Amino acid sequence: MPLGQRAGDKSDSRYCGVEVLDFPAGDGLPAVLTHSLSSAFDFLLAPLVDPDYRPTPGAVLPVAASDLVLSPSQWSSHIVGKISEWIDLDSEDEQLRLDSELTLKQEIAWATHLSLQACVIPPPKRSTCANYARVVNNILQGLTNMQLWLRIPLEKSESMDEDHDKSETVDSWEWWNSFRLLCEHSSQLYVALDILSSLPSMNSLGRWFGEPVRAAILQTDAFLTNARGYPCLSKRHQTLLTGFFNHSVQVIISGRSNHNVSQVSEGVLSRDENHTEDTPTQHALSPYLDYMAYLYQRMDPLPEQERFEINYRDFLQSPLQPLMDNLEAQTYETFEKDTVKYTQYQRAIAKALVDKVSDDEVSTTRTVLMVVGAGRGPLVRASLQAAEETGRMLKVYAVEKNPNAVITLHSLIKLEGWESMVTIISSDMRCWDAPEKADILVSELLGSFGDNELSPECLDGAQRFLKPDGISIPSSYTSFIQPVTASKLHNDIKAHKDIAHFETAYVVKLHRVARLAPPQEVFSFAHPNFSPKATNQRYTKLQFELPQDTGSCLVHGFAGYFDAVLYKDVHLGIEPNTCTPNMFSWFPIFFPLRKPIYVPSESPIEVHFWRCCGATKVWYEWALVAPSPSPIHNSNGRSYWVGL
Amino acid sequence: MPLGQRAGDKSDSRYCGVEVLDFPAGDGLPAVLTHSLSSAFDFLLAPLVDPDYRPTPGAVLPVAASDLVLSPSQWSSHIVGKISEWIDLDSEDEQLRLDSELTLKQEIAWATHLSLQACVIPPPKRSTCANYARVVNNILQGLTNMQLWLRIPLEKSESMDEDHDKSETVDSWEWWNSFRLLCEHSSQLYVALDILSSLPSMNSLGRWFGEPVRAAILQTDAFLTNARGYPCLSKRHQTLLTGFFNHSVQVIISGRSNHNVSQVSEGVLSRDENHTEDTPTQHALSPYLDYMAYLYQRMDPLPEQERFEINYRDFLQSPLQPLMDNLEAQTYETFEKDTVKYTQYQRAIAKALVDKVSDDEVSTTRTVLMVVGAGRGPLVRASLQAAEETGRMLKVYAVEKNPNAVITLHSLIKLEGWESMVTIISSDMRCWDAPEKADILVSELLGSFGDNELSPECLDGAQRFLKPDGISIPSSYTSFIQPVTASKLHNDIKAHKDIAHFETAYVVKLHRVARLAPPQEVFSFAHPNFSPKATNQRYTKLQFELPQDTGSCLVHGFAGYFDAVLYKDVHLGIEPNTCTPNMFSWFPIFFPLRKPIYVPSESPIEVHFWRCCGATKVWYEWALVAPSPSPIHNSNGRSYWVGL
Repeated sequence: MPLGQRAGDKSDSRYCGVEVLDFPAGDGLPAVLTHSLSSAFDFLLAPLVDPDYRPTPGAVLPVAASDLVLSPSQWSSHIVGKISEWIDLDSEDEQLRLDSELTLKQEIAWATHLSLQACVIPPPKRSTCANYARVVNNILQGLTNMQLWLRIPLEKSESMDEDHDKSETVDSWEWWNSFRLLCEHSSQLYVALDILSSLPSMNSLGRWFGEPVRAAILQTDAFLTNARGYPCLSKRHQTLLTGFFNHSVQVIISGRSNHNVSQVSEGVLSRDENHTEDTPTQHALSPYLDYMAYLYQRMDPLPEQERFEINYRDFLQSPLQPLMDNLEAQTYETFEKDTVKYTQYQRAIAKALVDKVSDDEVSTTRTVLMVVGAGRGPLVRASLQAAEETGRMLKVYAVEKNPNAVITLHSLIKLEGWESMVTIISSDMRCWDAPEKADILVSELLGSFGDNELSPECLDGAQRFLKPDGISIPSSYTSFIQPVTASKLHNDIKAHKDIAHFETAYVVKLHRVARLAPPQEVFSFAHPNFSPKATNQRYTKLQFELPQDTGSCLVHGFAGYFDAVLYKDVHLGIEPNTCTPNMFSWFPIFFPLRKPIYVPSESPIEVHFWRCCGATKVWYEWALVAPSPSPIHNSNGRSYWVGL
Repeated sequence: MPLGQRAGDKSDSRYCGVEVLDFPAGDGLPAVLTHSLSSAFDFLLAPLVDPDYRPTPGAVLPVAASDLVLSPSQWSSHIVGKISEWIDLDSEDEQLRLDSELTLKQEIAWATHLSLQACVIPPPKRSTCANYARVVNNILQGLTNMQLWLRIPLEKSESMDEDHDKSETVDSWEWWNSFRLLCEHSSQLYVALDILSSLPSMNSLGRWFGEPVRAAILQTDAFLTNARGYPCLSKRHQTLLTGFFNHSVQVIISGRSNHNVSQVSEGVLSRDENHTEDTPTQHALSPYLDYMAYLYQRMDPLPEQERFEINYRDFLQSPLQPLMDNLEAQTYETFEKDTVKYTQYQRAIAKALVDKVSDDEVSTTRTVLMVVGAGRGPLVRASLQAAEETGRMLKVYAVEKNPNAVITLHSLIKLEGWESMVTIISSDMRCWDAPEKADILVSELLGSFGDNELSPECLDGAQRFLKPDGISIPSSYTSFIQPVTASKLHNDIKAHKDIAHFETAYVVKLHRVARLAPPQEVFSFAHPNFSPKATNQRYTKLQFELPQDTGSCLVHGFAGYFDAVLYKDVHLGIEPNTCTPNMFSWFPIFFPLRKPIYVPSESPIEVHFWRCCGATKVWYEWALVAPSPSPIHNSNGRSYWVGL
């Protein structure tokens, strides 16, 4: 039974499991499962094989239960396998090492036979775990559907400021990082984090939100006791758990009960009463589950916008090419619904009209406004509304290159009776021979990264018919980037098995991502720009410093945003610190790195970005310089470009 | 509203559309749509652009309706675009040709803008239609989601037997075939068949079931009138329509009403009363729709087995490799449920036991029976039941190579109390050193093509421990093939863009397939075979004659089946003419051809099949010899093989 109904949340974080500490053989497993499900847990993390088993020739594997005692759907929906914890693939003892390898493979084979969705494999027993990783990597090559969750205790000792001796600090993220690098970022290898009573700094915890964490195994020892004797969590633990819920991580309760709050005796998981399966006692860990459900239900409901976009989370899309391709009616329909955006445009146009035409002149002066890239007309509407609002007279030219949108524009003008005010021009703004010059040029040509849909090139072409003192709305725009950990995006790109997809920028609603440092400005453009030396080529170097207590991390690429000044103080954008609320026309952009870069604790990240212009296309190139150089990505625009 | 509720049928054939003959401009289209939907039609086939339009510079396309008059989902769910019928891309008149090309492209661009699912393009105006195909092929390259349905009248004149002058016979399938060959089997090009009052022979109609027919456009002129004045169809038309329903083809009613059976006046589709949109009159074509619904609902409900398998229709699966891979619990679970199969085995084993042990010997003779490939034990159970049924004493060895299945076998034996009768052997049958010899060897190692899961090689390995007079169950098996048209399967394989996938055999539930000739035997194997010259290599040539009235056709590959003699008269199989009813363990197999072969009317098809054996693998090679040679497929097993 899910932790609660959070409107619109369809992620795994609704589900809560329980770890089975003892080895329930034979009928024990079905009984434990029934008891746990009836106590509102959703699944078990359960041992599959007798932990006393060691391989001997000809022996039959002493499994917890025959595959027949549960149905195939029970096995796959309700059991996560727990691999024997004694295995030690990096022991100096060769026999133990060989026994461990054989047992691990036998247990995984059995779990595969049962079609389990996942197995938890024990934490590395030491910091060098190359042989463990080798065997797991071998196994991963043969798995088709099952996932392996590597168990990692969530711990990081803080180094003293004056004493930078790294060798003495422990950071379990480093174990995970070595393991997954050895396993080549396998897309079926995940993390299960053991949450203990003490927690590292928030900045270091934040790293995990970009890692493939599937489960947070919450130890009963991590709980405090409230005034009424019930289990609760510290504020910092609460914040962490809420973070997990928001990043689709499911919780597993583990440990012995320290809070025997109910009158009924403890359930089957209590060591003392292992055989009372049939009495409908409360589960010993129910108070902890109740507290989890309380935390889950206490969260704010997902905003409506977020619910709409939930299926886009971490889903990579190629950016639109509105210049080369014609948008479809559905695309126009979607973007036209973004009322916040058009309200901002209307405010900007109104301010510009008032600046252009003083109150004395309203009856004598008619402003010439050109909407370049008019689409199906939303900016024409916003312009006419701004004119009405300010009492200014307007002559509008609506310039649009998509002949299908022009058909709609004609219907609109007729329907609204705008024939006297609006002239429709079916042409690319870069070639149009305008009959007069404009006072105001209004456009919406911005992509997620600002200039990436070639607004600069289009407006350069259009400013031919802007008066020398004319206004462009937007008047300027700036792109931003920040380094991120984003293992899911990396694996999705890797699945294409080529370099081209790693040299492409994607539009994506970032979700399972760790943002490692505040965004910084990349490229800026201002319009109009009549300077004869004006160019749209750009080159920027940026240096990012991570907070000192973050620890080391892995950077998979850069998240990109934009902010635009429409006119004076009216802006529009998606840069996280200044973004316009409730606007949905743009997701962030993501620039991947071909090879994720390890950033040691306290090392700065230096990245270079280029915007390059050719005769028929515009493209970006990017490269990391520190902590270690990457190849130049997308050299000559070989993999990704925007057509002119 | 669907034609009716046919339990389990989720195919498109539930939906019935109506062709809009006139050009309803402006608000006409929404009104016609509302009226048609309220009259229980599901969609319209409607003209998008004024048929009087001819391209002129600067003109705005005179569309039926602005994109705004219907919602995006209405456009895509309820409107199939009808491209202007005047276009003629192969006219001698150059201006007409150029106007046609421009108009076709503009109309398709508009339909794309509206996100329509499909457009119907007019029938070729003459038998040479290369320029039409070229322009359509150009367009298809740029389409991502929309389909084009080429309208083709369903006609074929029969040639006189004595007069084989082909030039005088008309077969519209030939138009379609040329067109799709020119368009390189584009997966977005489909057929819409116009059903007229006279129909060609059933054999020639059967060809279309393997072609990508999306719609049958049923002309009102094709209807007869029943005693009460209502429209009905001839028996042959009824059979054809039922065939379409069963092959997921949807019907579109077209034409003027010839049956004014209701008292109310005709609806908006009647030319005379085009402006009565608001009166809730019955749709002029409703009597035809009612008859379609009657035909649809009259069909037998889909059998339960068919409902289970509906999602597997035409879905290509790689055959299992049970020898190299270990099956999973779910796979065992599924196959163990096939009670018909195990009942046949039990019958065969019972007969063999009675033959081995006469009634006088039942108390003194114990038969040694070995189940080789025991899996989780279903054949062990069938053997013990046969022994009980016949009163024979049995000693069973259950030999199984999958250690996970062996775990289950141990549980089963214990659970059932069979310890005294059954010995479990965890070993590959080919290496087992048996302590005694068997009277009966029971196995289920057959694939869809009989020997394709290497039953011959496994049983050769096992017959070492069969007594010279011992019995193998099955005692023999034979594979079968027949040539098929299967454009969907061809396109699915083509999507992989390599040769290897065209040299692979697939397990597939054949659905949209035309079976062109009766199946013929390919390879046979009998067990035991103690001959020192025995080999499992095979080579067979087959010649298929198509019925004389079929006409020409395209062969995409061969459907394969098997039949097995378990013991004496007890058989088991999927060969269509003799198949065991209600058995679901096997779908047919499909051997594709890299390039589909055109078979002219009355030409025989000659195909050669090889079964080849190497040290580590077994594979098939195949090739067409007539009507024209294909390359040898899968030479040296380079693309597809079964591991030993």
